[in-house]
Amino acid sequence: MTAFPLPPGSTIGILGGGQLGRMLAMAAARLGFDCVILTPEIDSPASRVAAHTLVAAYDDRGALAELARRSQVITFEFENVPAAVVAELSRLGAEVAPPTRALAVSQDRLEEKSFLNSAGIGTVGFARVDSEADLKAAFQRFGPPLLLKTRQGGYDGKGQIWVEKADQSAAAFDALGRRPCIAETPAAFKREVAVIAARGRDGEIALYPLTESHHENGILRRTSAPAQGTPKLFADAEKIAATLLSALGYVGVLGLELFDLNDGRLLVNEFAPRVHNTGHWTLDGCEVDQFEQHIRAVAGWPLGPTAAHHHVEMTNLLGDEALTWAKLAREPETRIWLYGKRAPQPGRKMGHVNRLSPLQDGRG
Amino acid sequence: MTAFPLPPGSTIGILGGGQLGRMLAMAAARLGFDCVILTPEIDSPASRVAAHTLVAAYDDRGALAELARRSQVITFEFENVPAAVVAELSRLGAEVAPPTRALAVSQDRLEEKSFLNSAGIGTVGFARVDSEADLKAAFQRFGPPLLLKTRQGGYDGKGQIWVEKADQSAAAFDALGRRPCIAETPAAFKREVAVIAARGRDGEIALYPLTESHHENGILRRTSAPAQGTPKLFADAEKIAATLLSALGYVGVLGLELFDLNDGRLLVNEFAPRVHNTGHWTLDGCEVDQFEQHIRAVAGWPLGPTAAHHHVEMTNLLGDEALTWAKLAREPETRIWLYGKRAPQPGRKMGHVNRLSPLQDGRG
Repeated sequence: MTAFPLPPGSTIGILGGGQLGRMLAMAAARLGFDCVILTPEIDSPASRVAAHTLVAAYDDRGALAELARRSQVITFEFENVPAAVVAELSRLGAEVAPPTRALAVSQDRLEEKSFLNSAGIGTVGFARVDSEADLKAAFQRFGPPLLLKTRQGGYDGKGQIWVEKADQSAAAFDALGRRPCIAETPAAFKREVAVIAARGRDGEIALYPLTESHHENGILRRTSAPAQGTPKLFADAEKIAATLLSALGYVGVLGLELFDLNDGRLLVNEFAPRVHNTGHWTLDGCEVDQFEQHIRAVAGWPLGPTAAHHHVEMTNLLGDEALTWAKLAREPETRIWLYGKRAPQPGRKMGHVNRLSPLQDGRG
Repeated sequence: MTAFPLPPGSTIGILGGGQLGRMLAMAAARLGFDCVILTPEIDSPASRVAAHTLVAAYDDRGALAELARRSQVITFEFENVPAAVVAELSRLGAEVAPPTRALAVSQDRLEEKSFLNSAGIGTVGFARVDSEADLKAAFQRFGPPLLLKTRQGGYDGKGQIWVEKADQSAAAFDALGRRPCIAETPAAFKREVAVIAARGRDGEIALYPLTESHHENGILRRTSAPAQGTPKLFADAEKIAATLLSALGYVGVLGLELFDLNDGRLLVNEFAPRVHNTGHWTLDGCEVDQFEQHIRAVAGWPLGPTAAHHHVEMTNLLGDEALTWAKLAREPETRIWLYGKRAPQPGRKMGHVNRLSPLQDGRG
């Protein structure tokens, strides 16, 4: 059994070698922890700043055993960790955080929305779609249009399609491979907002200020943080985030994406049981960023402060936008984060910049 | 020939695997650089956050060749890099920054003070001491007491001794092993202050705010940043730092330690051609810290902003003080930096904390 809080010098295992693992490993190092990365990728972004790397498939039992042997706690940088991997780590007696329940719920969009509603948290209307007939029934219940999504997999706008009319049901269901789906009603939102939320092993909760998200082609483009808004909006967002963390018995950092509706209500779009792109602004806008906060939480440390000390405009560098580094380096207000990825494929997240300006007030 | 600015994806070689190398490697990673560490230590603090490590003696010619082959630029975390190593790297055609002249000057306390004076920068009075007779002559010239130091080596208060009377000359010179020495007059200072100074490849200069240093037993204990002081004091410090950087044709970050005299003058005590303990406060007090600034400079990037956004009290964690991490983690104003060293020997620098408070004004 692992005793918490973990002392410095302990090793934290991370499933995944991408930029989130990289920034987690750097935060862990600041606190005196070593990291061991499990990733199928040779020379991954995370492994280049970590003490140890195991290059293997995520379901490689030998690698998982080695990861469990080396690590006092294991966490992950992506939510689609296969259930079999989680089960194997549990069988090995490894401490895994965030809790596997949060993984299971967030991996299935139907389970996710059902869980949120059962916790008293509002979402758009939704229906289970296992067949063309289910989708037609959803049209009868909700009317058009509907957003059809696969229940599992898909990210950055992939695996989803808008269906305008009931008689397009068959074509839409075919287009998503006739996999188990969820149909969602549109949200009449004026903007998308997000909250980075953390919960410690003792139940302590720490919430970063609400932020405003701007997506393009289904990919987060820009975060403005802290967001403008009324005290009621901030209070509502904080209540939703705290309710969700407690309902999940969560440990770690969670990214929560919401719709700010025209009528003033907030609905949850989705959550990710991990550090999140909408929290990258905290690296330069807060004393303790989301990555250190996650390490603190999973290591059983007290959580750190979450107030903003700067207003931040976070912009993702997609594909060859990272090639503009020389121009960005000349901007005094711009902090640069590059992920060490070799190939700037179109749309690939190669880095981000945080552009700082003074806080106008406590909110941003 | 290396072309500057270095693009992200380039590799930066670092001589030395301690905490300064560790924090340099983390800063380099943020900007998308890989690092290769050359250190004789297995499992060094720096190597645990770096892409590559060569474990070898600093004068291992094979290791130096490999370092030169892998690195687009080579820097160092300590100033006592042997001249033979620098010569070998030059022979290999490697780009080394800061310039080797700064190394040579700073490695010899007599050369250092002579160089400073020749650049018009004030120091305490000093005399070359190669014999007991030289020390007696220094007493005749300056009067007692004198601080006798070995010209080379020694740090954190080692390799130096106060001599109260001329007739103690033989004993003092014996105590330092009859090595080449320098005798220095006392400085009537009210406090010790420091400046972290940076110069880019294009001659651009960036200076961090003046800080106040508190030593105990010859070891830096605490930095208060920015320091209180008059506009004249700040202007004098900035002029000295800029003069020194230009005189050295410097590239990189340099730590400059000064005496703030009772009569209002500033004298240089010494400088280190590297990132410096008196600059650790910048990690949490400035947008671009000294480590990123050094990487920017040696990579040929534009320098970043140096203004303080918080007042910081930096305190070194020496020996088993690092064992107080659990208490420190509960302090909301305290940012923790631990170096991943295994053995908390007495006096060993195991980490530091930056305690933040709001800036009272532009200065601190």
